[in-house]
Amino acid sequence: MRVLLVGAGGVGTAITRIAARRSFFEAMVVADRDLARAEAAVAAVDDGTGRFSAAPVDASDEAAVTALLTERGCDVLLNATDPRFVMPLFGAALAAGADYLDMAMSLSRPHPERPYEECGVKLGDAQFERAAEWEKAGRLALVGMGVEPGLSDVFARYAADELFDTIEEIGVRDGANLTVDGYDFAPSFSIWTTIEECLNPPVVYETGRGWFTTEPFSEPEVFDFPEGIGPVGCVNVEHEEVLLMPRWVDAGRVTFKYGLGEEFIGTLRTLHQLGLDRTGPVTVQSDRGPVRVSPRDVVAACLPDPATLGERMHGKTCAGTWVKGTKDGRAREVYLYHVVDNQWSMREYGSQAVVWQTAVNPVVALELMAAGTWAGSGVLGPEALAPRPFLDLLTSYGSPWGVRES
Amino acid sequence: MRVLLVGAGGVGTAITRIAARRSFFEAMVVADRDLARAEAAVAAVDDGTGRFSAAPVDASDEAAVTALLTERGCDVLLNATDPRFVMPLFGAALAAGADYLDMAMSLSRPHPERPYEECGVKLGDAQFERAAEWEKAGRLALVGMGVEPGLSDVFARYAADELFDTIEEIGVRDGANLTVDGYDFAPSFSIWTTIEECLNPPVVYETGRGWFTTEPFSEPEVFDFPEGIGPVGCVNVEHEEVLLMPRWVDAGRVTFKYGLGEEFIGTLRTLHQLGLDRTGPVTVQSDRGPVRVSPRDVVAACLPDPATLGERMHGKTCAGTWVKGTKDGRAREVYLYHVVDNQWSMREYGSQAVVWQTAVNPVVALELMAAGTWAGSGVLGPEALAPRPFLDLLTSYGSPWGVRES
Repeated sequence: MRVLLVGAGGVGTAITRIAARRSFFEAMVVADRDLARAEAAVAAVDDGTGRFSAAPVDASDEAAVTALLTERGCDVLLNATDPRFVMPLFGAALAAGADYLDMAMSLSRPHPERPYEECGVKLGDAQFERAAEWEKAGRLALVGMGVEPGLSDVFARYAADELFDTIEEIGVRDGANLTVDGYDFAPSFSIWTTIEECLNPPVVYETGRGWFTTEPFSEPEVFDFPEGIGPVGCVNVEHEEVLLMPRWVDAGRVTFKYGLGEEFIGTLRTLHQLGLDRTGPVTVQSDRGPVRVSPRDVVAACLPDPATLGERMHGKTCAGTWVKGTKDGRAREVYLYHVVDNQWSMREYGSQAVVWQTAVNPVVALELMAAGTWAGSGVLGPEALAPRPFLDLLTSYGSPWGVRES
Repeated sequence: MRVLLVGAGGVGTAITRIAARRSFFEAMVVADRDLARAEAAVAAVDDGTGRFSAAPVDASDEAAVTALLTERGCDVLLNATDPRFVMPLFGAALAAGADYLDMAMSLSRPHPERPYEECGVKLGDAQFERAAEWEKAGRLALVGMGVEPGLSDVFARYAADELFDTIEEIGVRDGANLTVDGYDFAPSFSIWTTIEECLNPPVVYETGRGWFTTEPFSEPEVFDFPEGIGPVGCVNVEHEEVLLMPRWVDAGRVTFKYGLGEEFIGTLRTLHQLGLDRTGPVTVQSDRGPVRVSPRDVVAACLPDPATLGERMHGKTCAGTWVKGTKDGRAREVYLYHVVDNQWSMREYGSQAVVWQTAVNPVVALELMAAGTWAGSGVLGPEALAPRPFLDLLTSYGSPWGVRES
């Protein structure tokens, strides 16, 4: 397998560190708009085998990415950029005849008249529209293959296959007790993506009704996270799992709730009230005269890069899937989860917990694809494939998952 | 009198509208970096007398402003820009031999080690340092001559002269019940200046101790504002009155508290936590490539221009000075205040209430200077001059002030 990894930010860099310990691929080309960033990621893992190399690329330029895939003879593109670049990278892989993986799907657009009741363009719609082309090409686009979406979807399929006869509700629940020394406010994940998923209308799925949206931060609940994290206030946010799971898993209701906490919700509300979440440009003075900049990019530029905070970070992060249903005629409720302790991920990989947890899952998926254990064609979510090999391989990477029965 | 008005923003434009109804000056040159903005202000008030004219000027260019004062034969510079431009304009007036007025004083710099206990560079320090030059030139720099500082300082001097024998405490208190249709968050005054005054360490004066600072938003209290505004939560903020009043009025303690309300305080805290209040540049992508922009400028660019919100605004704004002390051996407490109803200021002048209330006071001061009623040399605050003629002339402008005894 020859991999083109696009994006050498926090997650991309963690991917190289995790992949460097595995032997399933012959080459990984690390491409980034900032060549120095790609080179730094490669230099950190260069093991003398020459498997890793760096290249400059503009992820928004589909033709340039297609050319790079062909030149380097890559048979799979792993997208580790922010969701704005999903469609050009997805298109480039198809054009070059490569397989494709991402960790976030093509962006949504709210319903023009009833944004908090009906879906407009949904997450991933632009990708699923092209599913027939992928099937025809006999290539696999495995979408939403990070931790959430990704591992959370594998958990849902595992629950449906092995733990339940009927499923009333699946709720992905994400929470952490991470703190960062020296910062009042330092998100542990890309603020650009966090704003995108938290301020868009949250999407919910119900049998009969299908997908629909609510006001932001709806249906607040306190969820008790395992391994010492404890109770965290969670609210609905827009997330890929709600769009993916109902396509392959039979469930009465699917939600995604994020353990944001009151303070973080307040911060996001303020950014929205002030229009600072906007991606459309405003005109402002700069050192080069009046320019047009995206306020959300400015917010991101003011905050520390989450990938660099690992040394100052303490605590654990938990991703997981709560399932309620019946087994053998009896009610059952389980939470399938994966916890990463920042101290462990920093010591083992030099990557902070949230970034590492996102990065490990696509590497596991690539290894299953290289072995032929995971195979298919078309546009598939992780729940379309066999869950048990994935969960076993993840454990063998030194990062076990858990189950809590209640 | 020939006036050079620098700044054709909200306050500058309101100044031209108020001045147009008065006959005390022969010429008012309206200068702005954006000539079109200056021309628009002039066009709106042109009464056929030719008293108003427009000119382009860069307020940060002291030499250019000096040349403009000389060319146009102006004998007074009225500064209606934001506080960043105080020093070049103040210097230009001195260089050209003109008098000078502003509505905010030269900027402070926090104490490098103990910012929330001791003053560093205080508001106006850079101006008072040059007082001897102004005295020697026989010209007057009347600083802090808006509504707050400005009218609030006139109130303090009036209280000391006519209402009290001894003053224990003077507290400027500013509150409003303004709302803006269609906006969750729309400050009624320049957000740049509001951030500057609210996030800098608040300054307090006490006899014996002198000036000192506190944490932002300190000493919260609920103050009951008159004319139907009612109780509003107020906190200490940095403001010029605290630096001006003790120089000319004998009082045991001087504070300034702003009726920000909990929600606005929360918004300012969030901007500070995220570093979006910073004026120092961050690097961000723009339509012209990577540029350096000031996050605070981006925040301002995302919000509506407060001067344009008058039509959608409802309610009243109150500026005033609360004084506690003794008269004839008995305890006394009064609140001297000035309320502007937005509906009135929009109908009469087409200017929103907060902007109009700031603008009227320097025009009254100019008229007193033109008549010779207010005269002096050096760097003076409004409380250095006779309060009664000012208060009478303000009332004759159709905007009376009030007194509440408690």
